[in-house]
Amino acid sequence: MKVPMKDKVLISEVGPRDGLQNCKGVMPTALKKTWVKGLYDAGLREIEVGSFVPPRLFPQLADTAEIVAFAKTLPNLRVLALVPNLRGAEAAINAGVTSIGFPLSVSETHSVKNLRQTHDQAIENVRQIAELIAAQPKASRPEFEGALSTAFGCSIEGVIPESKVLNLAERLIAAGVDELGLSDTVGYAQPLQVKRLIRKTREVAGADRVKSVHLHNTYGLGLANAFAAYEEGIEVFDSSQGGLGGCPASPGASGNIVTEDLVFMFESMGVSTGVNLDALIACRELLSAGLPDEQLYGMTPNAGLPKSFAK
Amino acid sequence: MKVPMKDKVLISEVGPRDGLQNCKGVMPTALKKTWVKGLYDAGLREIEVGSFVPPRLFPQLADTAEIVAFAKTLPNLRVLALVPNLRGAEAAINAGVTSIGFPLSVSETHSVKNLRQTHDQAIENVRQIAELIAAQPKASRPEFEGALSTAFGCSIEGVIPESKVLNLAERLIAAGVDELGLSDTVGYAQPLQVKRLIRKTREVAGADRVKSVHLHNTYGLGLANAFAAYEEGIEVFDSSQGGLGGCPASPGASGNIVTEDLVFMFESMGVSTGVNLDALIACRELLSAGLPDEQLYGMTPNAGLPKSFAK
Repeated sequence: MKVPMKDKVLISEVGPRDGLQNCKGVMPTALKKTWVKGLYDAGLREIEVGSFVPPRLFPQLADTAEIVAFAKTLPNLRVLALVPNLRGAEAAINAGVTSIGFPLSVSETHSVKNLRQTHDQAIENVRQIAELIAAQPKASRPEFEGALSTAFGCSIEGVIPESKVLNLAERLIAAGVDELGLSDTVGYAQPLQVKRLIRKTREVAGADRVKSVHLHNTYGLGLANAFAAYEEGIEVFDSSQGGLGGCPASPGASGNIVTEDLVFMFESMGVSTGVNLDALIACRELLSAGLPDEQLYGMTPNAGLPKSFAK
Repeated sequence: MKVPMKDKVLISEVGPRDGLQNCKGVMPTALKKTWVKGLYDAGLREIEVGSFVPPRLFPQLADTAEIVAFAKTLPNLRVLALVPNLRGAEAAINAGVTSIGFPLSVSETHSVKNLRQTHDQAIENVRQIAELIAAQPKASRPEFEGALSTAFGCSIEGVIPESKVLNLAERLIAAGVDELGLSDTVGYAQPLQVKRLIRKTREVAGADRVKSVHLHNTYGLGLANAFAAYEEGIEVFDSSQGGLGGCPASPGASGNIVTEDLVFMFESMGVSTGVNLDALIACRELLSAGLPDEQLYGMTPNAGLPKSFAK
């Protein structure tokens, strides 16, 4: 079943979560809000603002509830947060998120290292979270996405068999997630693999449940993988401003694909993102104000928009 | 007509030409030979080693004849050089190149600035070169490729109409080139455009005459464009070690796609390049020895090969 390419895509900015959790510095809450507001003003309509995880382990994300509350004041912004368990989901629901994500590592070694959960434990947590979400009043009920982390390879286990990804996809759906995301946590994916795994995952989970990918740029293949996913009809793309990010539990993982370059790619293809590139690039200063020591990636900000670019 | 994806591709290393001509420093001839030998030993079997242009304008390439002679001692290496006119072609033939390239800018403004040739003048030069080549004994007759520069956009003219590319493709074939290459001289291309223009150019020139692309990474889309071209059955990919390159006549152009990352992409997809990545990455030191002030790009050299990578 071939899913057509889309006229517009949704860029899901994960910098405030995936980016910041991998930085040594802690961005002050007020500057984080300014940055999130800047990203919103540039046209982004989905932002993963944090994780409901122990502040002791992730001091960078300790203010997630406050950031969620702030982000929810911005009209039509989808506000996402990750949770590792029922307790995190309760906090996310109390904070008022639009969508809850649960990262299930297909590499069980990575799952244990990252979440301290075996696959069975993770699936049980997903089931409990799904039950909690189902019990919420419909008006405030968040969506629930299961992210298949390390789906394209793991820096600890190496090759990840596709049969494992598909098995866990089925189990996540059975446990009650609404959608699945395919995550290249460490940046090992290549474009043909991206296309193949999207098709196979849709075969077991249904095309309407597989709409998003999360890609890293460890080997410079991030945008090639994004284009490959786009060709398969994927419509939601995670990325982070300045290419921040990585994975604390994955040695060698480097940053997410760069939002600026991703937006440039889609807009230059005539695919609408709703994002104003000049305004987005200007937000790099807000990010740098909050994290002055962090190196920002991206080619588009340095190159300047081309003469052939239709704004 | 759909051209199938290939099991193996040819990486055409253009660093010694496109890379060096855009560097401020001049690499000493002896170090250039060491670098070319290193690239060959890493498995590269096509290298564009220079241009036969006035040494006054391009001192970096003044030793092209000597580098060609050296490169020709390496068994089974295809040795390429660019020429801007008949005089350059004579020098290239005398030096013994495997293949001669003529860069015809689809942007006439760029053509005048870069080669001081209008389209009519350039086509006449191509005709003369083709005649000269045809007069050579068959055993030593070089191949002749016309490169359609700025085919995807120009930093002076902006958008380049596809009709102009196709018209010049026809004129180049009529003037006697064996093959055409599509060149994104300034890095404005996007993947859907790459696919479309390859298909259209093949319609006017024949699929067997359109086998190669030359891409830059100005906006970070280089590998996405390379993957798009691969999907169209393109089998020869220009790239430069460390992503050196640009265009002296194109303000804002930045480097070529990075050979290291391009090889990684293909090898990780199971597409053979014949290149040993560890050996290729080691050549960066040879390049840096010859041009110590030059910044090298590329993600793969820093990331180290992934655990899932089959060597």
